[in-house]
Amino acid sequence: MSTTQINPLEALSQALSLDMAAVNTLIRQRMASENAPRIPEVTAHLIEAGGKRIRPMMTLAAARLCGYDGDAHVKLAATVEFIHTATLLHDDVVDESAQRRGRPTANLLWDNKSSVLVGDYLFARAFQLMVEPGNLRALTILSNAAAVIAEGEVLQLTAAQNTATTEATYFKVIRGKTAALFSAATQVGPVIAGSDEAQVQALYDYGDALGICFQIVDDFLDYGGAGDGLGKNLGDDFREGKLTLPVIRAIAAADADERAFWDRTIGKGQQAEGDLDHAMTLLARHGTLESTRRTALDWADRARSALAPLPAHPLKDMLADLADFVVKRVS
Amino acid sequence: MSTTQINPLEALSQALSLDMAAVNTLIRQRMASENAPRIPEVTAHLIEAGGKRIRPMMTLAAARLCGYDGDAHVKLAATVEFIHTATLLHDDVVDESAQRRGRPTANLLWDNKSSVLVGDYLFARAFQLMVEPGNLRALTILSNAAAVIAEGEVLQLTAAQNTATTEATYFKVIRGKTAALFSAATQVGPVIAGSDEAQVQALYDYGDALGICFQIVDDFLDYGGAGDGLGKNLGDDFREGKLTLPVIRAIAAADADERAFWDRTIGKGQQAEGDLDHAMTLLARHGTLESTRRTALDWADRARSALAPLPAHPLKDMLADLADFVVKRVS
Repeated sequence: MSTTQINPLEALSQALSLDMAAVNTLIRQRMASENAPRIPEVTAHLIEAGGKRIRPMMTLAAARLCGYDGDAHVKLAATVEFIHTATLLHDDVVDESAQRRGRPTANLLWDNKSSVLVGDYLFARAFQLMVEPGNLRALTILSNAAAVIAEGEVLQLTAAQNTATTEATYFKVIRGKTAALFSAATQVGPVIAGSDEAQVQALYDYGDALGICFQIVDDFLDYGGAGDGLGKNLGDDFREGKLTLPVIRAIAAADADERAFWDRTIGKGQQAEGDLDHAMTLLARHGTLESTRRTALDWADRARSALAPLPAHPLKDMLADLADFVVKRVS
Repeated sequence: MSTTQINPLEALSQALSLDMAAVNTLIRQRMASENAPRIPEVTAHLIEAGGKRIRPMMTLAAARLCGYDGDAHVKLAATVEFIHTATLLHDDVVDESAQRRGRPTANLLWDNKSSVLVGDYLFARAFQLMVEPGNLRALTILSNAAAVIAEGEVLQLTAAQNTATTEATYFKVIRGKTAALFSAATQVGPVIAGSDEAQVQALYDYGDALGICFQIVDDFLDYGGAGDGLGKNLGDDFREGKLTLPVIRAIAAADADERAFWDRTIGKGQQAEGDLDHAMTLLARHGTLESTRRTALDWADRARSALAPLPAHPLKDMLADLADFVVKRVS
């Protein structure tokens, strides 16, 4: 049952508009650098590209939902966005991407070097910011998340082109590269609010499930979501040899011919005209986009259910609706 | 006046051998990753390459010299080494280096992607470690240092090939890329020891001056220190178009012909056989290696003098001698 007529991301954005304005101001201040002019050039490019700021919104919502009324949540929300932006800069280097959010990437506009070093700068700025509120538990959560993110990225790199990749490895990768920051973002809310452990756990579980759902949807859309306007190119994962859920399941169900196809295109990276179309045919044959969609729906349900221990609050309803909204892109 | 017969780095290493053993154990533990096997491969390569561990030793020495007898100094020393190692990994990507400490670099053995992501992992591990002792001032110092390091690296990147680079910019770059970690490493010692502000400032000043001295010596050796066994190749900075002190001073003193030479080789990066030799001739003509050596000596003196407010202690003498030792490589 939806409690709002507008979409839940919009609803959260409106309900948290004052906090988000403070976060945006802080982000702009801290992304600057008087000593190295290249830094504001690159970061301005990223800021202007927009982005939904969904992660910092999670921190603000979690904190407010738990009755927090200080100002540490703004700093931690900006921290979360900085970590996210730093990983985007480094991801684009690693993936050799040319587009992000429909615009040329920083590594294309400047160079890989700038992306690496400005990413490092944003990581460092994130750590400076997270130290300021002086909450050691929040610091532990966020620094742990940073390590798990990097682990997930390395695991993804080494699993690429490995057609023996299991679903278990896939979930390890996406828990790292995506869900770890969502769960940290939501968990620090109740932590700074001084909420009880049940609520801390509830918001950790919510963020974890939402992050997993979010990434599964993203991986679905790489094969099934043409023209969603988010600047993602259909088939990027296929071309990069990434083993995502639809492909892992199609490989598991493959006959000998199909197996040879995946070994050539993903395993050896030898791709020709028409291979992406054929890959889509195989996903359809084994119904793996449909089963991936159901898995995403399942994680959306888990996210919604995780919120049960939290007190009634308009923000709680919006977070619950957000899980459904995320998965709606594949419905 | 030297208080030891062996070199001061050796003396420090012996005096702090138990602490250093604890640091090395901790480094080995925290560099591992059960989830992403590529990580221990890359980090083991770095650990085995040795390195002098001079930065963590600074933290241990500063803490002990101030009478500290807890165990936070071991964690902060490992933090400092992790930040250093992470920056090395990213530097090698940015500089496209093939050798580090006489061995092939990680970006060559694996790929740039692994170097970027494993570097990120080590940064995150550094932050996890620095959070553990729970000292907020130490956290602030180290996270600030991380930001200043990244700023220095970006500034160096954008100053490369710019023959108008001033000495002021050069000092900004090396304060960032090198001295910031030395000064943070030494400053956190008195901070966790609860020393008075004069001692905190003294050890900050010492680390700052030592780090600047260290980098000037390094930049000198790139033109003047063949075969020091550290795996540095003569002329690397020249080939990369880095504006270091000997070159900045030679450009400042250049006549029209010399100016054209620097504009071509450094400014435009058009280098041919014999250009490095000619560059060395120009440095000799204007005595800029000699003046660079004198500048390094001056910073070594500043490092030694900075220690004055500290109590008499064998470690104090070793630190004082270390400053002379660093600069001895160019004497």
